[in-house]
This record gives sequence, C-alpha cells and structure tokens, in this order.
Amino acid sequence: MAKYRIAVIPGDGIGKEVMPEGIRVLDTVAARFGIEFEWDHLDWSCDRYHSAGGMMPADGLDRIRNHDAIYLGAVGWPTVPDHVSLWELLIPIRRNFQQYVNLRPVRLFDGVPCPLAGRPEIDFWIVRENNEGEYSEIGGRLYPGTDAEMAVQENVFTRRGTDRVLRYAFELARSRPEKHLTSATKSNGIIHTMPFWDERFKAMGEAYPDVRTDQYHIDILTAHFVRNPSRFDVVVGSNLFGDILSDLGPAVTGTIGIAPSANINPERDFPSMFEPVHGSAPDIAGKGIANPIGQIWSGAMMLDHLGHPDAGKAIVGAIEKVLVRPDLLTPDMGGKATTAGLGQAVADAL
Amino acid sequence: MAKYRIAVIPGDGIGKEVMPEGIRVLDTVAARFGIEFEWDHLDWSCDRYHSAGGMMPADGLDRIRNHDAIYLGAVGWPTVPDHVSLWELLIPIRRNFQQYVNLRPVRLFDGVPCPLAGRPEIDFWIVRENNEGEYSEIGGRLYPGTDAEMAVQENVFTRRGTDRVLRYAFELARSRPEKHLTSATKSNGIIHTMPFWDERFKAMGEAYPDVRTDQYHIDILTAHFVRNPSRFDVVVGSNLFGDILSDLGPAVTGTIGIAPSANINPERDFPSMFEPVHGSAPDIAGKGIANPIGQIWSGAMMLDHLGHPDAGKAIVGAIEKVLVRPDLLTPDMGGKATTAGLGQAVADAL
Ligand SMILES: CC(C)[C@H](C(=O)O)[C@@H](O)C(=O)O
Ligand SMILES: CC(C)[C@H](C(=O)O)[C@@H](O)C(=O)O
Repeated sequence: MAKYRIAVIPGDGIGKEVMPEGIRVLDTVAARFGIEFEWDHLDWSCDRYHSAGGMMPADGLDRIRNHDAIYLGAVGWPTVPDHVSLWELLIPIRRNFQQYVNLRPVRLFDGVPCPLAGRPEIDFWIVRENNEGEYSEIGGRLYPGTDAEMAVQENVFTRRGTDRVLRYAFELARSRPEKHLTSATKSNGIIHTMPFWDERFKAMGEAYPDVRTDQYHIDILTAHFVRNPSRFDVVVGSNLFGDILSDLGPAVTGTIGIAPSANINPERDFPSMFEPVHGSAPDIAGKGIANPIGQIWSGAMMLDHLGHPDAGKAIVGAIEKVLVRPDLLTPDMGGKATTAGLGQAVADAL
Repeated sequence: MAKYRIAVIPGDGIGKEVMPEGIRVLDTVAARFGIEFEWDHLDWSCDRYHSAGGMMPADGLDRIRNHDAIYLGAVGWPTVPDHVSLWELLIPIRRNFQQYVNLRPVRLFDGVPCPLAGRPEIDFWIVRENNEGEYSEIGGRLYPGTDAEMAVQENVFTRRGTDRVLRYAFELARSRPEKHLTSATKSNGIIHTMPFWDERFKAMGEAYPDVRTDQYHIDILTAHFVRNPSRFDVVVGSNLFGDILSDLGPAVTGTIGIAPSANINPERDFPSMFEPVHGSAPDIAGKGIANPIGQIWSGAMMLDHLGHPDAGKAIVGAIEKVLVRPDLLTPDMGGKATTAGLGQAVADAL
C-alpha cells in the first residue's frame, strides 16, 4: 500500500472550513485506490501569529522538509498585515522548496453559471512562475515619512528561473492534443525584463517545434480571456502576470471558489504544495458556506503529483457529477448548499 | 472665436485610418460651437523611423511643447521593436510633458454587443498613473548571453508621483454622484511599493471624507471587472495595473475599439495628449474597417480639457445615437460598416 505523509496547514478563515472537506474526499478516494495518508495537522496561521508570535515555528520549514507533500487551505487575516502573514508562511515555502511552477487549471464545468454570454468552452492551464520575477525580496524606501519619500521594488528575472518554468510549460503543452502555448508578456512597456522573457520563450521554443506558440501583452491578454477564452490551451506567465490571469480565468468560468493550484518542485528535491486559488475570505468566513471544490480539486492535483493520476481523475469525475446538481451548489455558484454538504456530496459520488 | 493649435500624430497602422475620422468629427463640432482648430500634421511613426532614422526629429518635443494639445492615433509596427517605437515617441511625450494622469472611461453603450451575460450597467472611470511605477527607465542585464544572465527592472513609486495622481482621482470621485473610489493594489505579494501606495491612498483619503473608498488586490480586481462591473465608479491604479485594467474594462463593454484616453498634465504646464486605447492593429490595418470611435471619443475628451465640455458632450451624444444603429457598426462590434462610414455617421449625427 502506498503511504504518504502530508503536512496539513488549514491556515485562516475559510481555509479552516474547506480543509476538512478536502481531507474527507482524499480519505475516501484513498480507501478505493489502496493509498494511505498520514495527515500531520499544523496550526500555522494568523491565530498562531497572535498566540505564539509567529506564523510558523522558527524551524517550520525543517519540520515539513521530508513530508511527501503540503496541503494548504488559505493564509491571511485582517488583523495581520498581508506582507507579514504571507511573507512568513506561504512565500517562504514556495521559495525555499523551489516550487517554481504554479500550475492552475481553468475550466468551465457544466452546471456552474458562467458570467459570459453564450457559455464558450473553457478548458486550459496556466503555468505561473512562482519564485522570482516581480515578487522579489529586493526593494525598500528612501526618505521615509518625508515629502521626498520613495519606494522601490526590483523585478528579477534570471535565465535559470525563466528557462525552467518555460521548459515545464512547453512540456505540458506538448503533452496535450492542441500543443498550443501562449506567453504573457509586456515587452512594449516595461523595458528590461520582458524582452528578456520573450527571448527565452523564443529560444526554448526551438527545442519544441511541434508546439504552436503565440504571445500577447498582458493588457490585451486579459481582454482575450473575456472575449475568446476558448482559444487558450496552456498559458505561461511571470509571477505577477500569472497571478492576475489565474484569478481572472476562474472568474470567467463562474467562480474562483472552484480553482485549485499546485506549487510544484518538478525535481522533487522538496515537497510540493497544493492549495486553492482563493484566499481566506474574511467576508464569508465562519458561515459554513465557502465552496470546498478548490480545496478538493487541489487534492486531486496532489494525487497526480504523487503518481496516482487515476485517483486524481476519479475526484475530478466526482466533481463533474456533483456540479450539475443545482441543489448541491454553494452560494458563490448560485445555490444554497453548505461547505460540508457539497464536500460530502463529492465524497459520496466517488 | 476660440482657436487651438493641435499637434496631430496619426502614427502607424490603423492610427492613420481612424485619425481622419477624429478630425472630421472635431471640425464638424467646432463649426457648431465657434471653435477653430489649426491641425499641425506630423508624420512621427515607424515609417519615419525607417526613412529618417528616428520615430520623431531630435527636437520633436520642443516643436510641440507650445501646442494646445496633442492628438495621437496609434504607435508601433512589427518592423520596429516595441521598446524602440514606444520609448522614442509615446513614452517620452507622457513623461516629459508630465502627463501623469491617464484618464480612461469604461462604458457599455446601448447597441454594442456585450460579452457578459445579462448586460450589466457599466459606466466608470479609470485613473492610471502615467509617469513612473512599474514603467521606469531603471534596469538592465547582468552576464548577457550566458547561463548566468539576469534582467532586472526597477519599480519606482515616489510620494510626489503617487500623491498627485491620487489627488486627481479623489477629486474626480468627489465630482461624481456616487463619490466612490477604488484602489488597485497588491500589497500582499510585492512588498515594498504597494504597501506604500496603500499608505498614500489612506492618507489622501483623510482629506476627502465625503468619498467612499475601497481597495482590491489586482488579481481579484480583474475578477470583479468581469463579475461585478456595475460596482465601480472611479478606479485608480499604478502605471501597470491601470494599463491592464483599461484594456480589460473596454473588453467587458464589448470592444476595445471604442475606448478613448486622455494623458493629462493637470497643471497645464505642458500640452496634454489624447489617443485611443487600442494600438496600431497590424492584423486589420489597411482594410478600412477599424473602429474610429476610440479616436473620436478621445477628441471629445480633448474638448473637455480645452474648456469646451458642451462640445465634448455633443460628440458623445452623437456616438450614442449612432451605436444603436446595427448597420453603422464596424466588424469589431458585429457589424459591416467601414471606418469612414461610421466616422461620417457620427459627424452627420451632430
Ligand atoms: C503601447 C504601450 C506602451 C501602452 C502602455 O502600456 O502604456 C499602451 O498599452 C497603453 O495602454 O497606452
Ligand atoms: C496571497 C498571495 C501572496 C498569493 C500570490 O500573490 O501569489 C495569491 O494571490 C495567489 O495567487 O496564490
């Protein structure tokens, strides 16, 4: 029997509400596929920040370094500044564990109300660079508190960091029937980093002559997400551009509540991390109405990564079956179901 | 009779096709409102770059420094790298003439097909910082051409640059019935510049207690543009965030072809510049089917700026009248009309 030790970090807000549903579904599928999960529950969160003075213990990363994967809910709460809560938990995990690929599927499911007229077919993947780019530690302020004050932030794009995520994106595109890869860029506005990104995209493309490529500036690309979402197959973007596109994409498919993500270290030197795209949602936290599908689908991506694509597929199949049932949808999808109701329904459908 | 000297820069591609329609409509309205335009036609463009070795003459800025305004079509062509064509024409004008406000209305007109189900009401303004932020000259490459290559780009936010655009946005919000201002931010991811932006937004808000404020991270804000566009009144963003939002907004209202923009120097130390949001569109250039409304509406914004809001309103009224006529719409709006046909129709409607 395959056995995995998983670090479970529910985090804050609705993270704590959707996590039990993710685990419920994973335990159900595990029983069916001869898999065993050992869940290592960790209270790392803004609550912990208040009670123990830190988002995680000082040796937090070492404690989970040898786990098989990390399963995360959502991090952040209004009582702690974002740049504390995120830079002391989410970002260090992504960086230190070299999870340089953030993989985020965008798909319109039958049954989920779509904000676009005519319900186009939508089914593509976003590959987001997850370690460098516009999110870097380098920056600061000059003359703070005076009229001359200024803040600077450095965008850093390395050839190693750029090439490795582009390679992943080209490999993914090659594995799909359409073999079509779109690059998000902005070489006309921001001078130094984006022409570099374009060069590396072009250079990498030479090794993948079977992959059809195109590129759009990020401004018009967001417009195409709304006007022509069916044209995309795999979209690769920098840390910031990928971040934006991977909220916009799910919004176009009806709700960000169903969107999953995988923070992947492809070399498997470190554990990868699986988490929904949505945040801790203070506005609906505590009501038991958050959509658990993002968390559950992230669990399916974890199974893919651990080498159990059949088990992952079974979960996605169960999600498909449940979402066409209006009585089982949570409020963000126009229904009245609860988090637990929808989670149980997916488990039952397995 | 009010007389204005306008620098006319049609630029490249469809810029050359929509500009005559803008001028046609402006001349028509001018005759009615006792205004006289002296058009100073300039061939600054990628064509000029090839024939004369520069996008504009070396003393280009001095030649237009004393004009009353600049009326621009679109700049850029595939034969010249964007970071040449734009950084040698569009960007120097915005920067040197301290056009630090880029004002872009987003409005769904009756008659224009909307990509959103249910045709929500959409009518808001984007105020984009236009001089600094993510678009800065500071950056470069280390170890070019080697495996160790890296490219860096500096984001620069000054208190002066941030406060002046925020002040403009608060004033605009105050002048509107809803008095609601939304700030685009990303203080959770990019550490140093966005918390600074948030601080300045909050500080400026204290002087405008009558303006209701909120803020969203740029990722979820793009989602709200699709899910709840009716909730916005005035949206203020940095150079890059404003750039993205002002393509996405018009896409949500049916076509980017109608979207205008004003690059404003509020102090009037320098001429302001009026241009459509769309680019030179090589894919449809030369066919005579480009939508001229973005150029025409930009002319209306120029009239507002020059102190003739009645004349500007007359143009927008004529646009409203024409867009409900399916036979007058260009292909981007689902019709079969030509650039000249639609332009003439707006002039006739005056
Ligand atoms: C052409 C380009 C430099 C420009 C920008 O990014 O500012 C354009 O996208 C715009 O929005 O005016
Ligand atoms: C919470 C935040 C730091 C994060 C990000 O920007 O990466 C989130 O938006 C995401 O997309 O995972």
